[in-house]
Amino acid sequence: MTQHRGTTDEKWMDLALHLAETTRGQTSPNPMVGAVVVKEGRVLGSGAHLRAGAPHAEVYALDLAGEEAQGSTLYVTLEPCNHRGRTPPCTERAIAAGVKRVVIGTLDPDERVSGSGERRLQEAGIEVEEGVLRNRCLELNEAYFHHRRTGRPFVILKSAVTLDGKTATPTGDSRWVTGEAARERVHQMRHWCDAVMIGSGTALRDRPRLTVRLPSGGRNPLRVLLDSRLRLPLDAPLADVGEASTWVFCTDEADGEKERALAAKGVRVIRAGKGPRVDLEAVLNILGQEGVLSVLAECGGELNASLLEEGLVDKVVFFVAPKLLGGKNSPTAVEGTGPDRMSRAVELSRLHVESVGEDWCVTGYPEKTKDLSGN
Amino acid sequence: MTQHRGTTDEKWMDLALHLAETTRGQTSPNPMVGAVVVKEGRVLGSGAHLRAGAPHAEVYALDLAGEEAQGSTLYVTLEPCNHRGRTPPCTERAIAAGVKRVVIGTLDPDERVSGSGERRLQEAGIEVEEGVLRNRCLELNEAYFHHRRTGRPFVILKSAVTLDGKTATPTGDSRWVTGEAARERVHQMRHWCDAVMIGSGTALRDRPRLTVRLPSGGRNPLRVLLDSRLRLPLDAPLADVGEASTWVFCTDEADGEKERALAAKGVRVIRAGKGPRVDLEAVLNILGQEGVLSVLAECGGELNASLLEEGLVDKVVFFVAPKLLGGKNSPTAVEGTGPDRMSRAVELSRLHVESVGEDWCVTGYPEKTKDLSGN
Repeated sequence: MTQHRGTTDEKWMDLALHLAETTRGQTSPNPMVGAVVVKEGRVLGSGAHLRAGAPHAEVYALDLAGEEAQGSTLYVTLEPCNHRGRTPPCTERAIAAGVKRVVIGTLDPDERVSGSGERRLQEAGIEVEEGVLRNRCLELNEAYFHHRRTGRPFVILKSAVTLDGKTATPTGDSRWVTGEAARERVHQMRHWCDAVMIGSGTALRDRPRLTVRLPSGGRNPLRVLLDSRLRLPLDAPLADVGEASTWVFCTDEADGEKERALAAKGVRVIRAGKGPRVDLEAVLNILGQEGVLSVLAECGGELNASLLEEGLVDKVVFFVAPKLLGGKNSPTAVEGTGPDRMSRAVELSRLHVESVGEDWCVTGYPEKTKDLSGN
Repeated sequence: MTQHRGTTDEKWMDLALHLAETTRGQTSPNPMVGAVVVKEGRVLGSGAHLRAGAPHAEVYALDLAGEEAQGSTLYVTLEPCNHRGRTPPCTERAIAAGVKRVVIGTLDPDERVSGSGERRLQEAGIEVEEGVLRNRCLELNEAYFHHRRTGRPFVILKSAVTLDGKTATPTGDSRWVTGEAARERVHQMRHWCDAVMIGSGTALRDRPRLTVRLPSGGRNPLRVLLDSRLRLPLDAPLADVGEASTWVFCTDEADGEKERALAAKGVRVIRAGKGPRVDLEAVLNILGQEGVLSVLAECGGELNASLLEEGLVDKVVFFVAPKLLGGKNSPTAVEGTGPDRMSRAVELSRLHVESVGEDWCVTGYPEKTKDLSGN
């Protein structure tokens, strides 16, 4: 951990953030939360929420502090809950422990919390400060916040391209664009996300398993296939749900017999869309309703273009390999029709570039679909 | 200048390198050279070769040192010349000044020097050390060294792409892929290079001037157009040689009348190639013979693919804009046929990534055309 520069409050919130970060991929549908109990410059307790159903971060930290929590400051990356869910409300736990001051990274937008936790603490005479390292606390749970705000999962568009933008050769060979370190990072991202999504073209061509293969293990995400006409072969790896669940989205027109055959194999088939293509927004709404907070979209250029055009991409992660492939007909990461004017490209903000092995990982947040009138 | 870590010799060579670097773009067909005269830890003189015909770096440095040069160490990024060219030999100047020790970055591959400078100094009883910061000295004059070794100019393939690899929209709009800082950097690169090269497609579509437009001024490069059938309109900016020279390369089959019309406007027309397309290697050989050390290739995807396939690209500079354009038919930086296997992509080594304004500049050196047998 690098030396933290900032106020004392920021120092302890930074520690709470680090604790929360360690649980990435294991808390959904709950957010990641870290907590630290401090008195007179000494850490008395610390903790993180480990998985849905397990105690909240504050409980671990306060348990560890024990009676010493009396008169302490509790740092927590997210507003403490004030409702009885699977665990008792954290506000009451902090009040009972005699905490003097609570420092909150950001309020919890969940309708069962949403400021009520902060108010309950204040009513009990506890000094509350909110917004310390707020942006980092928001980014930590960007998927959770997005889901609470929109009802849809946070969609991360991931692609691996050569420096000249190609994802495969004209004949479809894509093994491999990037090196081992980048490919391992993708498996890490699958572990972090609730679902991985691809289109039928990729499923038929590459026959991927979309599971997490990491030296250290990992959790397999839900596998989401957009397959308007239910073209997935019954012997495809995605039709084998032994390792991970598969949900296939098709249109109303898809063949009922194929649906039953897939269902018999344990694949969940969901109809979303009356037209020739699956309705992407409907798919995401259904996933959101099912508690999917984050989707890693590992799609081809056509589907990527549709997702971007419909403003459904929340984050972009491109792995760029230091090589030039060429090929007028080599597929690229974003295809579709494309706009007439360069000024209509989707700009990425909050850009971050880092090296991953011999490749580069570029992360950014797309501005949403522009007003088509040109404003 | 950052604090230099290393030996004392490296410290002074670093200074000489910085002096040489300041002359980038103004010394061709000569190399950039910097020199420093040091005695007992004190700089007595320093200089750089400013332009062809002007004194060499060593002369400036020794002149400044005057009689104090007696017993000093001369640091010079490139082996001192031992022949009478437009100026007298630098070896004799160093010997006459009583220099005790000469530290050389790298030998000069020019056949008139090529170790003879080092030998002459040694014969005169001067201690000579060669190879201090050699790699940096080689990179400084990579174009000069390449030209001396191959007889051809050093070709820098430059492109500006969106993160998804597009250089323009499907309708050809490319204004602008990158931001102002990156575009200014391109003008800086034109100033650094002896020639800028494009194909007729770019010339007809964009009607570029290819001149240097920098707030601080700059030198216009020779403009090289590859135009197999002499399609360049007589009213194109490139046909106006008021600002800068234009050489147009065409095939033997190109129209003689058009050639005469262009020549009448001051454009030099050169035939290179008997087939349907200009012979790229022949073009570069001719440019090399004419003393062109470096070519900035600002071509479209087809010409870029040909240059890469023929192993004629020596360095790659890509400006990557943080935006996604999309478009199956949007042009990309490298087109052509493309290989069947991803493993046949051209790998870039010595990769360097830096931010330029809101964009990223990626620099690398391509491995040359692979043995087509797969080795």
